[in-house]
Amino acid sequence: MSRTDPLVIFTPSGKRGTFPTGTRVLDAARQLGVDLDSVCGGRGICSKCQVAPSFGDFSKHGITSSPGALSEWNSVEERYKSIRGMIDGRRLGCQALIEGDVVIDVPPESQVHKQVVRKSADTRDIVLDPATRLYYVEVDAPDMHEPSGDLERLSKALAEQWDLPGTTCDLRIMQQLQPALRKGDWKVTVAVYQGNGPDEARIVHVWPGYYEGTLYGVAIDLGSTTIAAHLCDLRTGKVLASSGIMNPQIRFGEDLMSRVSYSMMNPGGAVEMTKAVRTALQALINTVAEEAAIDPALIFEAVFVANPVMHHLLLGIDPVELGQAPFALATSDSMSLLATELDLNVHPSARVYILPCIAGHVGADAAAVALSEAPHRSEDLVLIVDVGTNAEILLGNTQKVLACSSPTGPAFEGAQISSGQRAAPGAIERVEIDKVNKEPRFRVIGSDKWSDEDGFMAEAGTITGICGSGIIEAIAEMRMAGLVDPGGLIGSAAQTGTKRCVANGRTHEYVLFEGDGTSPRITVTNGDIRAIQLAKAALYAGARLLMDQMGVDEVDRVVLAGAFGAHISPKHAMVLGMIPDCDVEKVTSAGNAAGTGARIALLNVSARREVEANVRKIVKVETAVEPRFQEHFVAASNIPHATEPYTKLRKIAPLPDVSFNTNGEDGGRRRRRRSAKAN
Amino acid sequence: MSRTDPLVIFTPSGKRGTFPTGTRVLDAARQLGVDLDSVCGGRGICSKCQVAPSFGDFSKHGITSSPGALSEWNSVEERYKSIRGMIDGRRLGCQALIEGDVVIDVPPESQVHKQVVRKSADTRDIVLDPATRLYYVEVDAPDMHEPSGDLERLSKALAEQWDLPGTTCDLRIMQQLQPALRKGDWKVTVAVYQGNGPDEARIVHVWPGYYEGTLYGVAIDLGSTTIAAHLCDLRTGKVLASSGIMNPQIRFGEDLMSRVSYSMMNPGGAVEMTKAVRTALQALINTVAEEAAIDPALIFEAVFVANPVMHHLLLGIDPVELGQAPFALATSDSMSLLATELDLNVHPSARVYILPCIAGHVGADAAAVALSEAPHRSEDLVLIVDVGTNAEILLGNTQKVLACSSPTGPAFEGAQISSGQRAAPGAIERVEIDKVNKEPRFRVIGSDKWSDEDGFMAEAGTITGICGSGIIEAIAEMRMAGLVDPGGLIGSAAQTGTKRCVANGRTHEYVLFEGDGTSPRITVTNGDIRAIQLAKAALYAGARLLMDQMGVDEVDRVVLAGAFGAHISPKHAMVLGMIPDCDVEKVTSAGNAAGTGARIALLNVSARREVEANVRKIVKVETAVEPRFQEHFVAASNIPHATEPYTKLRKIAPLPDVSFNTNGEDGGRRRRRRSAKAN
Repeated sequence: MSRTDPLVIFTPSGKRGTFPTGTRVLDAARQLGVDLDSVCGGRGICSKCQVAPSFGDFSKHGITSSPGALSEWNSVEERYKSIRGMIDGRRLGCQALIEGDVVIDVPPESQVHKQVVRKSADTRDIVLDPATRLYYVEVDAPDMHEPSGDLERLSKALAEQWDLPGTTCDLRIMQQLQPALRKGDWKVTVAVYQGNGPDEARIVHVWPGYYEGTLYGVAIDLGSTTIAAHLCDLRTGKVLASSGIMNPQIRFGEDLMSRVSYSMMNPGGAVEMTKAVRTALQALINTVAEEAAIDPALIFEAVFVANPVMHHLLLGIDPVELGQAPFALATSDSMSLLATELDLNVHPSARVYILPCIAGHVGADAAAVALSEAPHRSEDLVLIVDVGTNAEILLGNTQKVLACSSPTGPAFEGAQISSGQRAAPGAIERVEIDKVNKEPRFRVIGSDKWSDEDGFMAEAGTITGICGSGIIEAIAEMRMAGLVDPGGLIGSAAQTGTKRCVANGRTHEYVLFEGDGTSPRITVTNGDIRAIQLAKAALYAGARLLMDQMGVDEVDRVVLAGAFGAHISPKHAMVLGMIPDCDVEKVTSAGNAAGTGARIALLNVSARREVEANVRKIVKVETAVEPRFQEHFVAASNIPHATEPYTKLRKIAPLPDVSFNTNGEDGGRRRRRRSAKAN
Repeated sequence: MSRTDPLVIFTPSGKRGTFPTGTRVLDAARQLGVDLDSVCGGRGICSKCQVAPSFGDFSKHGITSSPGALSEWNSVEERYKSIRGMIDGRRLGCQALIEGDVVIDVPPESQVHKQVVRKSADTRDIVLDPATRLYYVEVDAPDMHEPSGDLERLSKALAEQWDLPGTTCDLRIMQQLQPALRKGDWKVTVAVYQGNGPDEARIVHVWPGYYEGTLYGVAIDLGSTTIAAHLCDLRTGKVLASSGIMNPQIRFGEDLMSRVSYSMMNPGGAVEMTKAVRTALQALINTVAEEAAIDPALIFEAVFVANPVMHHLLLGIDPVELGQAPFALATSDSMSLLATELDLNVHPSARVYILPCIAGHVGADAAAVALSEAPHRSEDLVLIVDVGTNAEILLGNTQKVLACSSPTGPAFEGAQISSGQRAAPGAIERVEIDKVNKEPRFRVIGSDKWSDEDGFMAEAGTITGICGSGIIEAIAEMRMAGLVDPGGLIGSAAQTGTKRCVANGRTHEYVLFEGDGTSPRITVTNGDIRAIQLAKAALYAGARLLMDQMGVDEVDRVVLAGAFGAHISPKHAMVLGMIPDCDVEKVTSAGNAAGTGARIALLNVSARREVEANVRKIVKVETAVEPRFQEHFVAASNIPHATEPYTKLRKIAPLPDVSFNTNGEDGGRRRRRRSAKAN
């Protein structure tokens, strides 16, 4: 190419090259590998290749771009603009021809591999690259002298026009193909699924002519307690609707092990639970589709993350082996299935992708957290704690990643707590206790006011109970105010100097709210503290076991994940000793990281290959058989800890050295309970 | 290896090598690439590796083999022999150790790639190499410190023990895997399907421990009029049962085009026909399974061959495009499906393979004929004619293969014939007419006697009509006896000198059988001759068109295929002019070549790749739009032909130069009819 040819510079990529006068902008972009979208293959139909030429002196690039650098508007562009409208200054890349030096910007919406903007502050962005995409093709009409099937000619067109060789299709597409091709006068738009790798392209839908619509996918985090779904536009990556429901399997058992027991004890129990969860999933999918006002039949993909028991129950595999050592998974690899195999009524050829499991206790949900939080890309040592009924814990950096799970039980979610409830309006979610007069104030879900502010009761309405983050803050505040000793005992009114500490049998409770005509009295009992102690000790012991394996005594940062993790105050979590000592500003929340991981896998097919490869490198630590787990568990029952100094925490939080154990009896009872738990 | 090591020679392969003393015979065979079977992987369970050592002087091989050349019988062999019995002189290859020079014979039943013996004289043998095979494996027990799924460990075992990497499975296998592995104490037998190539191994069944049984497959020739099924043992290749039924779609139309019309005229008609044929297929499969006394759930594979219309109707694709130019197939490639996709109730993971189609008029049945008769491997130029309601014609040799189809109509199958009937007991199938006294004699299906032999009527019982091969012989004999002229007119009693030629309206008919109390009078009418003339002219014209394209005026040999083709007398077929002039001993019958092709594809997976590759090389000739077809058709209406001399035929058959056309009127009528047909 001689320099008499115009020079074209694409932004933001900075890719540049000279092209003969008359070259289409789209062709120049393709030759340079510039990420410029097109569904119709440059036929002036889809308008996805819109670009914004810039004119003027670009000393940075060493060129002057004049308005004559692109060809005049042609009839295709005029027509498109008059019917659909176009932003001023935009051109169709497949119509505009290069006639002089020019700088051309590719706006974000014209990029195939768009960056998906995530709502919250996140550790990584999602690059859009879905497994199912649309392609518009023009197919050769049949010729009886060169006989070949309609499918074979469509496949040839996809190979030639889109570089998709060897495309195949489901039988149901074969049954629809001939009328679609003829109705579209040999022009069709096809949805092609390439979830099993670039060499395995499968047509999953065919529309006559150019299809104007979009494709949808749903990312689902199937938890023991709740199921959350995010409906996404596979062309933009946007979340169009999110919704959550309770897992109906709760009626078979609150926690995973009781569901496994249900399956062991009841013939057909696993089948019953599978049916229940699939029915709930369908209802949830219908809900998000309705919310986004789309036809569920346009949902072409679903991605699932789940813990191993839920993973097996979703798939119709009896989870019995997961209830006993050696906790053997039926399969640990990722799975690609048809949605119909899971009885899901979405698009009839919709594909399901299920993330791989790490081990019998560390499931696809933990793999999704690893995908979202990417500990293997972290330079500093990060501890990631996904707090739920079962906690998944990851510890690692670019060198190595370890994982375990720990059976925390449902206390963190408000269960097993005397006034506990799930996070819902009316639940106390924030608590502060005055260090001097030991008086509390609190906030409830549904109101921005603190309980000592004017108009609080009017805004809060009925106060119904205390949720997981509320109980954590309450106990941590009680510890900091000297109302609870390191062993977890609540002091008497005499010992603490506040009449809010009242006797309750042989122990005491702290009155958070006296109650009124409509709202009940809400207290924190010593039983509540014990339940939280057991849960947090299990969580800490798991993390500590990973630190032992890693050969470290502290971590650089902590990430709290899980829907619940998003609401925990880092300082209070550390006062309780849920997590190891750390600079409090190094403790962050990742929100529902498992759900985010599901969404990443839904929107970016190469992320699936990434998580599959990474999961095999994660070293699994089995807490159930590690002798040190028990030791760590016992030491971690204290608040914050029996032996760890928590020096960083002590710089920012008072931890009064009180003791309310006057007769020694209660301590003995606690030890017995711990042993029962650990066996 | 030093020559002090024993020398082992395997027969019949002749493969030889030296091995250290103590090497297992099975290991030696594997190292040399000797085809020695084993399902259990050399664990002394399956006994498939039985060998027969030979002892004595083998000057041919240059060794002496003494009885001490193999180790003593061990307890595994003793036990096997005492329980199951073994042929004298046999040893288990996985138990016997090499201790001296020895000659070891691998009997046919111990070869993996057995030659399947075919009943009739056939052009090629089938080498057994099915897509679905059994493998016995010992799987690692799970280890919680090295977590991996049960499937992943099974897959690893298959890779290590059977060189089957990357095995996957259906979801339903995943659901059964864990109990099967535990019941079998980590030993299982799996059925693995590798129909889509060696890299795509899929587990389709799992049995705890060693599975003693076999696997079955069914090869189905789905014709317009009849459906034939052969149930085969996939381990031996033997046909265990064969059965045929009428295609129930006959009620929607006798021939293919009337079924296409039915679909065009009746909304839902194609769906109705698909349902009818699938129901009939299930009944047929149940019949062969019952006949062989096996559970249909052990049928793991089905292979289908069919003409394009039946192919589409089987798949649930509306055949409407096949009824009009350019006769576009929905798909021309081979297909691999699940049997459940075709509503077949066999093994729930059974796979279906459908041979590729050549073109819109030349289907998977013609591809199966090409696979069975292998014209592409023939040094001499072979014409293969598959005679049915629609005739498929192949012409070729190692250089090139051409194909076409020709709409012969159902006359050859006894339809459109005044006394015509399908081939069934009571039908006249052979006819001879004395050249001097013009008297006939005949044989009927169900009796070996000729009608002029003693006791014929007693043995034949009721004579009900005349079948396809009977009408061909009758007309050819009439032509040779001078009762029919080359134009197809039957002479009068006066013209022919026999009172068996009687008037019937304006033409004459020949009385083959006068009838009696129970059997009707059977005649050959001039209308019958015209129907056969139209059918045979279409057949000949198709063959002649291929010869034109090939640039030849004669062929080296002719193969008559199709169930009906097996019963045609080559000489009579040539007298009629169904096929081109040829040495009569060069005309052979291949029986149901399409069905044989289906059976080959069922039993040998590499034959599938072969037919897929060959079909793409076959040059399709479209008779419907070839102008010369009409010309050839008109000339071929004469018996045997208006212009071809048939010199080879004339040497062995009298073709009297008679003419019974006295008024010219009838000839004119014939021409009008031909034009109507050709339009």
